[in-house]
Amino acid sequence: MAKHEAFPMNGGSGLYSYTRNSTFQRKDTESAIELINKGIAEKLDLNNISSSSNTFRLADLGCSVGPNTFLAVQNIVDSVEDKYKSQGLSHLLPEFQVFFNDHISNDFNQLFSSLPPERRYYASGVPGSFHGRLFPSSSLHFVYSSNAVHWLSRVPKEVLDKNSPAWNKGRIQYSNSPLEVVKSYEAQYFKDMERFLTARSQEIVHGGLMALLVPACPNETPHSELFFNEALALLGSCVIELAKKSMISEEKVDSFNLPLYYAPFQQLEAIVDQNGYFSIEIMESLTKERPPSKLFSSVLRAGLEGLIKQHFGDEIDLDKLFDLYYQKFEEISSTNEPNKPIVLFLLLKRKEQSD
Amino acid sequence: MAKHEAFPMNGGSGLYSYTRNSTFQRKDTESAIELINKGIAEKLDLNNISSSSNTFRLADLGCSVGPNTFLAVQNIVDSVEDKYKSQGLSHLLPEFQVFFNDHISNDFNQLFSSLPPERRYYASGVPGSFHGRLFPSSSLHFVYSSNAVHWLSRVPKEVLDKNSPAWNKGRIQYSNSPLEVVKSYEAQYFKDMERFLTARSQEIVHGGLMALLVPACPNETPHSELFFNEALALLGSCVIELAKKSMISEEKVDSFNLPLYYAPFQQLEAIVDQNGYFSIEIMESLTKERPPSKLFSSVLRAGLEGLIKQHFGDEIDLDKLFDLYYQKFEEISSTNEPNKPIVLFLLLKRKEQSD
Repeated sequence: MAKHEAFPMNGGSGLYSYTRNSTFQRKDTESAIELINKGIAEKLDLNNISSSSNTFRLADLGCSVGPNTFLAVQNIVDSVEDKYKSQGLSHLLPEFQVFFNDHISNDFNQLFSSLPPERRYYASGVPGSFHGRLFPSSSLHFVYSSNAVHWLSRVPKEVLDKNSPAWNKGRIQYSNSPLEVVKSYEAQYFKDMERFLTARSQEIVHGGLMALLVPACPNETPHSELFFNEALALLGSCVIELAKKSMISEEKVDSFNLPLYYAPFQQLEAIVDQNGYFSIEIMESLTKERPPSKLFSSVLRAGLEGLIKQHFGDEIDLDKLFDLYYQKFEEISSTNEPNKPIVLFLLLKRKEQSD
Repeated sequence: MAKHEAFPMNGGSGLYSYTRNSTFQRKDTESAIELINKGIAEKLDLNNISSSSNTFRLADLGCSVGPNTFLAVQNIVDSVEDKYKSQGLSHLLPEFQVFFNDHISNDFNQLFSSLPPERRYYASGVPGSFHGRLFPSSSLHFVYSSNAVHWLSRVPKEVLDKNSPAWNKGRIQYSNSPLEVVKSYEAQYFKDMERFLTARSQEIVHGGLMALLVPACPNETPHSELFFNEALALLGSCVIELAKKSMISEEKVDSFNLPLYYAPFQQLEAIVDQNGYFSIEIMESLTKERPPSKLFSSVLRAGLEGLIKQHFGDEIDLDKLFDLYYQKFEEISSTNEPNKPIVLFLLLKRKEQSD
């Protein structure tokens, strides 16, 4: 099986664990519930499902360690059951098998130990990158993925190459960088999403659904004005400031780049169209409240400190870094109309025949 | 889902981890390979399998953290593929999905990180007790379980009850105890195995196979003369000796019992018959070489130190305990014809119709 780089959220249940710092992402889970219920009610063909198996199989790709994933999958189970009942098909009610997927280095021990005891589904964990195959052919009926597919499988190699016009000197991501850098990130994203969609097209039964929650960029918004990019560029400036004080070499900073890309809506549409295996059934942009500074600093730390530690080692003081971050984020938040996070909800349906 | 007590092997990859102390169990895996291949060649009905799905699903129940489980499942995959090919059914070759099951407290992170990179199956981990349901109905084609079903779901409660005739004072298991104690262990085993078989009868497709490797007791051998019981009784005497020196209370020792039972062969047969869902296709006793003392002390430590620590806390010195154990085991091993470990191999087939 192909190898991919892994960038897991913080495991365990400590102060900066994802378990304790996932309320920001929880809002997405909650906003998506209504759209998922609508999607299941209107777009899921039960005849198609029931004929293939008496087990309804669903997967959360990039589930991290909970608790958000448990909320999301329970809602999908409830919603599918409701549909069977409302259509007078209670006698055909399937059993549910849920696959929790994330990178091999995800803290599955933490995930398993916090599984809801009263769950009405058979749970299993699937380790591996969702940029490759994870499941047998035609074995899934519903795939869910929240706040995950904006992670690239790797940092585009040109941005680390001093001799490339896409060398991303002095920045940790693309939003304030020359066009060549942006294009490199974009190309990596297209490649990764194509592999993601093709793998899923093989795993999801015809007529099956896939709900994606993707932090993304409205078409008219420049990359640099997107909340997420602003937040990461800010982190970049904090890293550089601290690096200078701690005598961390310029080279070390130049070689640090975040494997994250926030696609413009139209790019996401184009990727799905080009792939050809899925139709877009629902596409809706969700604007969230700007998170409180303290909360967001911890959220960012839960998500990124593993990467930062891995690159800079003990040379960088993480407490200092995220304290500084908190102060700067707070300053921006107190200006007039600061940017708000935007997440795109996509409901895709596996086409009956691939075009 | 029902709650069960969990007694996992040592996780991680340290000196006394199961990962590094599983060569003793590996012998069983290796001896069973030939019998499993024979079972698959002669007893597995491919038509039955292929009609239900293009995925062959197999589970290892009580898999611990590897590496033995990887050897066992790879052999099953190879063997099933060989059968397809030898019958000219290469065009119907299924994909394989492997479910690695153990208690929630098993170290799944360690398991996942040591998955063979070149595996030809989709891997997933299933946390939970095999005394209850773990999988959807009729979803498995082959179940394997090695060195696992001799673990009881709990210590029989009467053996901990001062007012019961089955109170097991001054011993940590049943083999030298009054008949009432043995009967309590036996009753718990019957109850547990009945639940185990009934759960599997629901999960395994009709015609599907289950291979069990069970440390067990030949019919004519008294409990106290079985290698495993002798080995545990010896551990008991070491615990008592150390407890006295460390001022550990008699009560603390009396309340420590191991949830392990080595069934006489005829009891295992009776349990399967009584359950009624499975036919016994192969039943073969495997006698192993008596393990070297150093190795076996470490094996026992990897398997039991979690339980001992949990009960006695820091009051007991585990290094001392297993050093003492090593010496005493060595003494016994040097006598004439010391007992050898015996493991029963059972190949069960899910009956087409339950009687």
